[in-house]
Amino acid sequence: MKPRLILASTSAIRARILKAAGVPFEAIKPDVDESAIKAIAAREGLALPDIAQRLADAKALAVEAPGAIILGSDQMMAFEGRGFDKPQTMGEARRRLIELQGRTHTLINAVSIAKEGRIAFRHLDEPKLRMRAMSAEEIDAYLDQAGEEILASVGAYQVEALGSRLFDQIDGDYFAVLGLSLTPVLGFLRREGLLTF
Amino acid sequence: MKPRLILASTSAIRARILKAAGVPFEAIKPDVDESAIKAIAAREGLALPDIAQRLADAKALAVEAPGAIILGSDQMMAFEGRGFDKPQTMGEARRRLIELQGRTHTLINAVSIAKEGRIAFRHLDEPKLRMRAMSAEEIDAYLDQAGEEILASVGAYQVEALGSRLFDQIDGDYFAVLGLSLTPVLGFLRREGLLTF
Repeated sequence: MKPRLILASTSAIRARILKAAGVPFEAIKPDVDESAIKAIAAREGLALPDIAQRLADAKALAVEAPGAIILGSDQMMAFEGRGFDKPQTMGEARRRLIELQGRTHTLINAVSIAKEGRIAFRHLDEPKLRMRAMSAEEIDAYLDQAGEEILASVGAYQVEALGSRLFDQIDGDYFAVLGLSLTPVLGFLRREGLLTF
Repeated sequence: MKPRLILASTSAIRARILKAAGVPFEAIKPDVDESAIKAIAAREGLALPDIAQRLADAKALAVEAPGAIILGSDQMMAFEGRGFDKPQTMGEARRRLIELQGRTHTLINAVSIAKEGRIAFRHLDEPKLRMRAMSAEEIDAYLDQAGEEILASVGAYQVEALGSRLFDQIDGDYFAVLGLSLTPVLGFLRREGLLTF
């Protein structure tokens, strides 16, 4: 019998990525106190990629489902040595875009897959995105047109939608930019016999 | 008055890319004899990227629409020095995937934008894709599940759908892989005053 896959996330884009790739799964919200994990990690002086990986671990381990393969994932934005979460308000999104425009930032993506209560697979990806130089007027036009959906993203943009208009260059895996490093996940699922190709 | 944009193509994916980016356009099928252009270009000994660019030019120039900006685009697959068009049958698609598996190929993407009957902008992009090693059984499972939609693609796969499961690595612009180099097109449209951001 094929093991079932659980996506330990309620992110719409992660679900969309797996669905487009024809991967059967069930999404369950993991019960994880992200702020507490981040606060502890920051006190320990952990680097941003290690914090993202720890969050992905925690999400994968937080879902109890005997016999299932559980996929945890975290995305964090890194800019000039600082990590950023999703903006809470459109005002914060605006300030963030004004800071990011004309510069390069990184989207740290961590994947952790749990099996029988232990992490069986980890992957880290760090695509780099160069945002084009924009005036405050251009940023306002973008925010008006894109709306509050962008608050679902750490960078305050959605590359799969209007956010594509903000960039000069994107270096790295496109699926990781969207929020899930698909190729390594598929490789693991294939080795586990969950996919026929 | 803003100039209007015409996409000289009936490709569903190109239309989808522009639409997702919030770019207003109208799609018109260009009246171009692609086989004739390719035959002449081959006789002239043109390199594959030059052939793709010539096809994009021809498409952009084939649509008559005074005052409009006309976007022509061509995608060609290059593998071991040869150029490939869309496969005609599932049998041809199968043979192509058997040839491509375990190897790297290039998707040559040419964009040509016409304005007032002349080419005003050209862009060439050549993303490289490494297909993972697959057995004939895996390829058959893919073809069964993906169906005839893949015949719309020069590589016999659709990365935006199940085709994502065929690759180890994709280097280059994701939109060019899909079939339209979006970022340079947006830059041109912005300079022409067609976009506010």
